[in-house]
Parts: sequence; structure tokens; C-alpha cells
Amino acid sequence: MVTAMQDLGYIFEPKSVAIVGATTNPYTVTNVTFLRQLLDFGYQGRIYPVNPHASEILGLKAYAGIRDIPEPVDYVVCAIAAPHTPKLMHECVAAKVKVVSMYTAGFSETGEEGTKLEREVVAIARQGGVRVLGPNCLGIHCPKAGLSLVGSISRESGHVGLLSQSGGNGQDMILGLAQRQIYASKLVSFGNAADLNESDLLEYLGQDDDTRIIGIYIEGIKQPDRFARILRQVTRAKPVIILKGGKTPAGSGAVKLHTGALAGSREVWDTLCNQAGILQVHELKEMIDTIQAFVYLNPPRGRRVGIIGIGGGANVLATDACESAGLTVPEFPPEVRADLRIFTPAAGTGLGNPVDTLGEVYVDSSVLSKTVSVVAGWSGVDVLLVSFPMLLGVRLGIQYLRDGIEAVAKAAKDAGKPVAIILHTAGFAEGEIMAWELQKQCLAAGVPAYWTFTQAARAVSHLVSYHEQRSQ
Amino acid sequence: MVTAMQDLGYIFEPKSVAIVGATTNPYTVTNVTFLRQLLDFGYQGRIYPVNPHASEILGLKAYAGIRDIPEPVDYVVCAIAAPHTPKLMHECVAAKVKVVSMYTAGFSETGEEGTKLEREVVAIARQGGVRVLGPNCLGIHCPKAGLSLVGSISRESGHVGLLSQSGGNGQDMILGLAQRQIYASKLVSFGNAADLNESDLLEYLGQDDDTRIIGIYIEGIKQPDRFARILRQVTRAKPVIILKGGKTPAGSGAVKLHTGALAGSREVWDTLCNQAGILQVHELKEMIDTIQAFVYLNPPRGRRVGIIGIGGGANVLATDACESAGLTVPEFPPEVRADLRIFTPAAGTGLGNPVDTLGEVYVDSSVLSKTVSVVAGWSGVDVLLVSFPMLLGVRLGIQYLRDGIEAVAKAAKDAGKPVAIILHTAGFAEGEIMAWELQKQCLAAGVPAYWTFTQAARAVSHLVSYHEQRSQ
Repeated sequence: MVTAMQDLGYIFEPKSVAIVGATTNPYTVTNVTFLRQLLDFGYQGRIYPVNPHASEILGLKAYAGIRDIPEPVDYVVCAIAAPHTPKLMHECVAAKVKVVSMYTAGFSETGEEGTKLEREVVAIARQGGVRVLGPNCLGIHCPKAGLSLVGSISRESGHVGLLSQSGGNGQDMILGLAQRQIYASKLVSFGNAADLNESDLLEYLGQDDDTRIIGIYIEGIKQPDRFARILRQVTRAKPVIILKGGKTPAGSGAVKLHTGALAGSREVWDTLCNQAGILQVHELKEMIDTIQAFVYLNPPRGRRVGIIGIGGGANVLATDACESAGLTVPEFPPEVRADLRIFTPAAGTGLGNPVDTLGEVYVDSSVLSKTVSVVAGWSGVDVLLVSFPMLLGVRLGIQYLRDGIEAVAKAAKDAGKPVAIILHTAGFAEGEIMAWELQKQCLAAGVPAYWTFTQAARAVSHLVSYHEQRSQ
Repeated sequence: MVTAMQDLGYIFEPKSVAIVGATTNPYTVTNVTFLRQLLDFGYQGRIYPVNPHASEILGLKAYAGIRDIPEPVDYVVCAIAAPHTPKLMHECVAAKVKVVSMYTAGFSETGEEGTKLEREVVAIARQGGVRVLGPNCLGIHCPKAGLSLVGSISRESGHVGLLSQSGGNGQDMILGLAQRQIYASKLVSFGNAADLNESDLLEYLGQDDDTRIIGIYIEGIKQPDRFARILRQVTRAKPVIILKGGKTPAGSGAVKLHTGALAGSREVWDTLCNQAGILQVHELKEMIDTIQAFVYLNPPRGRRVGIIGIGGGANVLATDACESAGLTVPEFPPEVRADLRIFTPAAGTGLGNPVDTLGEVYVDSSVLSKTVSVVAGWSGVDVLLVSFPMLLGVRLGIQYLRDGIEAVAKAAKDAGKPVAIILHTAGFAEGEIMAWELQKQCLAAGVPAYWTFTQAARAVSHLVSYHEQRSQ
């Protein structure tokens, strides 16, 4: 195991990058995806654009081929047409390149001919001691090393390790997480997985000290038994959250078209995940929501939720969302209701669980604070979900919501219970744009923010499941 | 039936409104919810604030009681404490008020005492020929009559009739729909349904010429057999989309606390909906998404989707989302692939269904336009879903996406196939805020816009289901 890590660590910290297929037109996909991101991010190593028809690209000296670069090249992005890749790989071997990240598509995902070509290129690399990512991938995002697939949008280095068989889904995860002030240790987009595959990469992330949580988007498994074994091993130490593409019949067809992988049967996959204690999510947003819960919430002791919100109908749907996600919403005992009654106006409020507090209660943030204290103080709840309707912010001003959020975060912290906040609209822009503002405040106070109870409840349920499994 | 409509039509167009419980403090819930909305909306009838301790409220002359108002009052909002409501109702009877909308809570939702009081008040009203909404409700939003529960945010009158046992959920629906330039004919928030209930109101909306689509948020049914009969009847002429609150055990408890209703068993409810051909949704957002599909899309002939997007991984998840929602994603025959190949670069594109077009294809909107024409021109698809990644707009400028959206809308229209657009991010603010801008462009071109394939696919599936049932 230690060997595996030592083997792979070096691919994440290249001192120089060559981009084969860079162009003088700044808007080609290759430039937009690779060269401009590196420049925008401020990669500190050397960057060598490679193009036989250019002398300068985006202000950098261009080279005709890898062999023309006078210094060692650690990391090569290959973005030329597939038929030319064996020749390039020979050059990379000769130049002692460490890893070739093959953006080039047109291999096993296209059929028999492509599969043959893919095998040929990988054989050249392996014989020459070069590791290959892909083909048909974006390769590595590693902020610590200055390698970026999303440019300045996310400069930070963090503790989430991401594997993605799709480059685009990997970028989406980076962006969604960055918005929640959560950053990647590494993201590897590994496409067709012809050389380095999901098992190699997961094994590495499992032992990587910079990685505390692992998120995976995967389509097909190259080595099912090995992958299952590594999954079981890694998840004992770090949560692993997986989004599987191709779980439906047509989705499985799309997988074949995308990475040439066999998506496999949904049942086999679900069984594997259940046995290994892997958390499965069903959308990219759910992945981001779930990682957010792991990063911001102390593990709740159980599944019992206390809900505080405005509006009886919203609270009914909130309760349904929690129970549908596998959480429970226990009734309050009389003493909790009595404690709440002391400072809650009778009219139009409901003092069960959910607590239905009217706008007037929220206006006075000290009352809201007391409500949180009473609910969090009851031993019958493990985690709190508190909802703020953006409509009230639009009507009464954002400060009104800011005060409430501050009060909730503080009261929950004092009571030592995890809390998540729901920034509620049913999709009106003014409210949602206000929610993006308030989300920053929540995160600064160490509280995760969600847009709906469904999102929050699913994320919290995954968090609880992970800790339940570990304590078994 | 015609009688029912004639009976109720008058309650939606009051020439005068009294708000009993209005206060000199502009920020109380009563003022924020009722008086300020009416003023903000520009209600053209007379408004009478009623409060024995005030002479003027928000610039309007205030009255001590209903009896002190010198002119006839059509519509009374009752927002005083429950114990005072029988007296008020006697006054309303004496003043020949048409309808009393009881915002006041503290009735059957609180237990036996409250139930007794609720019966007493309704009995007074019925004996005196006054109709009652609620108690524990927001009452009527009817832009045509100038009555508003959301003020200037939504001034328009439209063709969606909404019933909601929860006032807040009703407001959320109005706001979410208005963002999609869809407006209500009427919204009735009917709370505890002590007098006018869901059957009365649905029967009315079924015959209301201004109402073409009906959305319902409901917790409990007062007259199950009658409601089932009316549902079956109405849905033959107009789509009825229902969100049921309290489908989980704890949710059913929250319902009792909210409107005192019996949520009933989930199984009975699901059977009723299936038999009646009612479309069930599970979140407020899904309600809004579904209504959007009904308003903007011509009915697809079937469930076969053509998907066009950027990124293989995104397209795999898009396909899974479509199939999970009950749509199908048929493979393209060779001739469709061949037609696409004529103008699509080979590298990095996938010409199956989904069509995986790279950024370079999108850059040239004429290529995108041809792609849509070929896919829409194939008789094997009934509806198109086309995705735009907001990340590219952030990188290359919003105009880049605008051109693409324009090309897609036009090509689909020319081909005579319905199309919906997905404004894709996995939750990063800059992209989502850009999406709100682009959404306006989509709607102006007559194309519905969604944030995810899951949302779009569910909405389209509901639309197809409705038309399948009707054609049976």
C-alpha cells in the first residue's frame, strides 16, 4: 500500500507542463480548458505550449515538439488527434516525461479500432515508464501544485479528494464546493482509465494525508474485486461518497459512448455499495450538499431532527422531506412545549416539532435564539434544521435575516448541537440571489446552508449513516 | 355545477376590503401580509383598516369596527384573536359582508376547544349568508380584482388556478411562477376549510374560464368521495397537479398541528390520484417546474427525448435523469449519426443520443442550430432537452450562451418539436446568477428553462402523462 502511494504522489506535483495542441486562437477548447486556466491560476512551474505551426502562444514561447523543449517535462497534456498519439508517446518516453494526461478522445469509447489504438499507446507508455491518465480526460487539478482545471475561480487547496471519470463533472464539483468554501486536495479526471484506473487512484487518495473526504463520479469499474476491497478499506478511515453514472439502461448506453466503460448492472453496484458502507448520491448537487455536511457539521449522535421554520405548510413539507430522507422528526414532550410557550406568542404559532414560528418571532432575534436553545437543549433531538424564508428578506430587508442567522448559529453552538440552515424560496430570483449572499454568512459562522429541506435532509442523513456504520 | 360557479364567483371580486386587526406599526404580520400588499399592488377598491385604537393606519382612515364603516364591505380579513371572532362574525352578518377570510388561527388545529369555536363561528356565518375562508388561512389572491398576497412582485393576471391549504406555500407558488412569467387567475389559501373546502373550490376552478391549469397544495380532504369525483371530472378538461403534505408519519403529525386535518393514508391517497389521473409532485419546485412545462411546451407526442449537451459525464447523468423520470432516450439510427457527422468535428464529440457536442460546436451557433434540426427532424424523438453549461458563459461571456439559446429556440420551432433548455451548474453562484438572466431570454423565446435535467425530465414526464391519459 505504501508503495502505491509513493508510486503516484509524484504525478500531482509537476514542475513543468507541456500542452501539446495549444493554439494561437485563445478560444479553442484546448486553450480554454488547459492553457488559460494555468495562466489564470498562476501556475508557478514552466509552461510549454507545443504546436509545430506557432512560435508564440498566449505570450509564451511555443515548441514544435516535446523533443524540442530544452528542459525536462514532468506533465504533458496531450490534445492532438488520436492517430498522432503513438508518435507523441514515443517522444514522451524519450524525454522521460512522468505522466501524460490524454485529453485526446477517439479511443476505446469509439469501438474496436479505437480500443486497439488505446492499447498501443498505453503499451508504449508502460514500456517506457510513463504513466497515463485517460485517454479522454482532463487530468489533474491540484491547487497545492498550482495545477488547475477551473482557473482563478478556485485557488484554494483543501481536503476533499475527488475522482471523476468525467472532466466536466469534476470541474462542476470543484466549482460547487468552492462556492461553499470547500476546496480539493486533488481532483483526478481519468476518462477511459486505460492505465491509471479508479482502484489505483482511490488507493492513493485513501493514504494521502491531504485528503480527508473522498467524492467519486464513476461510470464503469476496471477491476471490480480490487475496487470493492479498496473501497471497504478506505471508507473505514475516510468517508467515500459516490455518484454512479449509467444506472439506467439508456444511461449505460451513454456511458459506453462516453468512456467506453461497461456500466454494469445497477443491482450489482447497489449491493457493492451497501456492503462496503459507501454513500451513494444521485446528482452532482447531492454530492456537493453531502460533502458540505461532512465539512461543516459535527457528527450528530443520531437521526432525530428538530425543525424550526416559518409557516405551517412549509413545515409540513419539511417534515416529509426529513422522513423521506431517512431522518426522524420526534414529537416534543410537554415540557419542551411549555418552555417554548414562555416566550412565544400564542397566535398563529405551532409549538410541536416542527416549531412553526411566525414572522414576528423572527423579527426579534432574541426570541429565535431562545427557541433554538430550548429545542437544541432537549435530549430528544440530534440535529437542528432552521429555515429562513427569503420572501421576508425581500419584504423587510436582508438585515432582518442576517440577525436571525447570527442568532441561530450562536444558540446552536452554545447548545453544542449541529445545525443547518435552509434559505427557502421556491425559485424566485430575487430571493435566490439574496440566498447566495446569506450563504456566505452561514458558512462564516460554520453553519452549512441549503436551498431546500430535501437537500439538507439527504445530506444530513448521509452524514449520520457514515457515523452509524463506523460505530457498528 | 353551473350553480356552484355562480355561487362562488362573487367572492373573488370584492369592491371593498376591510382588514380587522390592522395596526399602526407597519411591520406586524397582519400589515405585512395584507394591508401593505394591497397598497403595494394598487388595489383599486376601498380599503378599510379596522382597529378600535387607531384613527389612521398607513395613511388610511381607520374604523373601530365593521359596523362603523359607512359603506358596504364585500371582503373582510379577520386577523384578531380567536375568542373575539364570533362577535366579529355577527357584525359581518349584520353588515351583509360577502366573505370573511379568517387569518386568525387557534381553532380546530389546536384541539377540542378550538374545534368547538370554529363550528360556532361557521354556524353564525352560514345562518347569516356569509361565506368563510379558513380559518387559519391567507384567503384570496386575485390580480384581476386587485387582490394580492405578494404585492408588486406579481401584478399580472394569468391562467393558473391555485388552491393551497397553506398560505405560505401559496405565496411561494405565486412567486416561483411569476419568475417564469406565469401568473395566477386565482389563488385561494383555505386553511382549516371549515366552510369553503377543497371540493367547493376545485369545482369552481374547474368551470372558471380564466383557469386553464390547476395546482393544489393540500393536507387533508374534508369530503373524500366528492373530491375524488370532482377531480376526475375536472382533470378531463384541465390538468390538475397536486402536492400532498403529510405523506410521511411525522408529516401527518405536522399536518394535524397546522390545519387540524387528517392527512390520511399515503396508500389511499396514491390510489385516488392514480385512478383519477392526477399528477402528483413532491416538492413546491416540482409543482412550479411542471406548470412551466404545461404553459410553455406543446404536448410532445410521446416520451422519447433527444438530448444535446456538452460533456460526456453530464450527458450520462442527463440520460439517467430522463429514464428515472419515466422518459426514454432512444439510440439514433445510423442515418441521423451520418447527418450529424457532416458538420460536427470528430474529435471529442459523441454523436449518439445524447449528442455530446464540445464547446467548439457551441461557439458556432449555426452548427448548434444544425444539430437541433437534425435531432428534431428525426421521427424517433418527441421532445428535445438542450443543456448549456454556465461555466462556459462565465469563461467566454454571456453573449456566447445567448447566441446558442437563440439558435436552439429557433431551430426547434422550425422543426415543430418542443424543446426545453437546461441552464447547468452544480451550484456555483456566478453561474446560477447568470442562469437567472438567461432564463428570461428562454421564456421570451417561448422555451421553458430548468436548472437540472432531473427537474426538466420530471416536468416533461408529467406533461406527457397528462396527454397520454387524455388520449386513452
